[in-house]
Amino acid sequence: MRKVGIAASGLTKFTKEDISIESLMISSIKPIFDNTKNLTQKDIDVVLTSTNSNEKYLANIISELAGISPKTAHSVESLCNSGTNCIVSAFSYISSGLADVALVVGAEKSDSPGLVLDWDKSRGQYKHPIYWSSLFTSSHMRKYGTTMEDLAYVSTKNHKNALDNPYSCFDRSYSLEEVMSSKNLTDNIRLLDCSMPCNGSASILLASEEVIRNFTDEPIWLSGIGQKSISAGFTKNSELSSMQSTSSAASDAYLMSHTLPSDIDMAEVHDAFSICEIMALESLKLVKPGGGAVFVKELYETNNKKINPRGGLIGTGHPLGATGIAQTIETYQQLQGEAGKRQVEKAKTALVHNMSAAATSSTVLILKS
Amino acid sequence: MRKVGIAASGLTKFTKEDISIESLMISSIKPIFDNTKNLTQKDIDVVLTSTNSNEKYLANIISELAGISPKTAHSVESLCNSGTNCIVSAFSYISSGLADVALVVGAEKSDSPGLVLDWDKSRGQYKHPIYWSSLFTSSHMRKYGTTMEDLAYVSTKNHKNALDNPYSCFDRSYSLEEVMSSKNLTDNIRLLDCSMPCNGSASILLASEEVIRNFTDEPIWLSGIGQKSISAGFTKNSELSSMQSTSSAASDAYLMSHTLPSDIDMAEVHDAFSICEIMALESLKLVKPGGGAVFVKELYETNNKKINPRGGLIGTGHPLGATGIAQTIETYQQLQGEAGKRQVEKAKTALVHNMSAAATSSTVLILKS
Repeated sequence: MRKVGIAASGLTKFTKEDISIESLMISSIKPIFDNTKNLTQKDIDVVLTSTNSNEKYLANIISELAGISPKTAHSVESLCNSGTNCIVSAFSYISSGLADVALVVGAEKSDSPGLVLDWDKSRGQYKHPIYWSSLFTSSHMRKYGTTMEDLAYVSTKNHKNALDNPYSCFDRSYSLEEVMSSKNLTDNIRLLDCSMPCNGSASILLASEEVIRNFTDEPIWLSGIGQKSISAGFTKNSELSSMQSTSSAASDAYLMSHTLPSDIDMAEVHDAFSICEIMALESLKLVKPGGGAVFVKELYETNNKKINPRGGLIGTGHPLGATGIAQTIETYQQLQGEAGKRQVEKAKTALVHNMSAAATSSTVLILKS
Repeated sequence: MRKVGIAASGLTKFTKEDISIESLMISSIKPIFDNTKNLTQKDIDVVLTSTNSNEKYLANIISELAGISPKTAHSVESLCNSGTNCIVSAFSYISSGLADVALVVGAEKSDSPGLVLDWDKSRGQYKHPIYWSSLFTSSHMRKYGTTMEDLAYVSTKNHKNALDNPYSCFDRSYSLEEVMSSKNLTDNIRLLDCSMPCNGSASILLASEEVIRNFTDEPIWLSGIGQKSISAGFTKNSELSSMQSTSSAASDAYLMSHTLPSDIDMAEVHDAFSICEIMALESLKLVKPGGGAVFVKELYETNNKKINPRGGLIGTGHPLGATGIAQTIETYQQLQGEAGKRQVEKAKTALVHNMSAAATSSTVLILKS
């Protein structure tokens, strides 16, 4: 299998300001062209757009606006997991030899049609994501004794980390007490346990081993990939206190990259809600089952930025189609040693966890410097 | 590059009857499971859906409904060219080694939001596809002396071919006179020169060389792939009497498969409008520039089914996201010698041409038995 690496990246500031999807995308592509030596539009073989927007032909529109005439151009959609689906697809075009350079562009608006999965009629009026996250929370509490305070540590930590992320939608920290006294949305989900939709875009440039050094002296390699879709509605989950699709995707990613969970120096995990970070850490085998909450508390108390240094979805905002790409960009910057105040020391191996709809599907990527 | 072949296919009858996108998709998947020896849901690594529908998470929904828990599942959209984009993406997952078996499922409804490209404001009220096809027609007439009668031969031939296609939406032939006297939509586009949107689905199963013989004794190989996106709005075309994206995609596909245009035994070309078949034949180098009309007339008069034996988009109907897959299924059946009354004798090498929006992007596939 041909090696594929990341050569460059670009982000917009995540915002509540109303900006068109095309403008968002072009704004995150621009720094890639501005900052990448030798890169011209002619180098780009593939343009993939990641979004839940209903706009059609978007990859071709963005290509035209950016002056690119790629071979392949299309949009990829898989709800919140669109971004890493797009990255894996770009990987496969390059790895197969069909392409050498691919531009992956994700963006979403805060009123995205991907916020609620209309299809799942079985949930009746309870189709908003807070309801599955509430069931996840109840189940995890029952099995492991997780508390409302444990959940608050996730939000407090991630909001604090986001203070060092110039692209975050939010710029204030919250005390444990503030999180715990924020508005109750269900009997165990508070407003500050939720990630919030926002407008934002993230772009990444992937290239083959053969050409990547034309564009960067420090490529970061996509060394492991795992994906799994269990279902679309979460009623097929075998249980609700762990993430089956995440475990399966992680196993495949660790195997492909010859990496153990103990090798992971830092990770971006999909904290759509506080409980998701705790469950993801366990399902990724970064901690033992039931060990997520204690680990998060320890990270917070020791100011250890190993998990979600950019602030996660809760601290930064969640523009659906951009999220998986923004997560991957954080690991890219960390492995390059370019993460500024967020830098995790000596990070050589990183993990990205991106998922959709009650962890019915997950992607896990492992990156190495 | 690892070889990838087609192992099975399924179609629904194209129809004006209102059927949900999920039901359409499941109906075209069913014959694949019914007719493929040894195939179980567990064999499928990748499920990609091709549609312009606004429904989200469709690849995961269809996977759940079909009892499949794939690794990778997402939707692909690139207007009328979505189907072959999906096939090429599936090819790359398999060819790269990330997957062994991929199910590609395309479907569309006749009221698809992909019928008109809202983005192209430069065309004002003239954004319906009949207007670009009318400009193509004027331009080709000016350059090559193409006549209204020449156009009528395309529609008459394709409607006649469709009579032998049990999955066609339409089941009657039209004389040259009937086509020529059908309603004028612009000064050079008549109603019967247009393909019509309809409801329909087409699915195809791709597999790696290593595993394909578990499922079929007669795989058909995807030996050449070419894709090109020039723009999203057709005002970037260098001229309007040929298809620049098609020429570029065809060159790459011929090169990859070590095939010459003269080796092509039969082809499915994207006759969204009559003029498109004539222009595509020329841009694919199956005839010389300006030679398309005479060639089509000759095919009709000699009852030669070499081009669009299933009836093309005009004869069969055009369910956008399914079209490229249905075209590919026709070449698959032809190369297997299983095309019944439509069979082109001794077909060993076939070509698929699928495009979007005024040929602003094209895919060309070359298949071999």
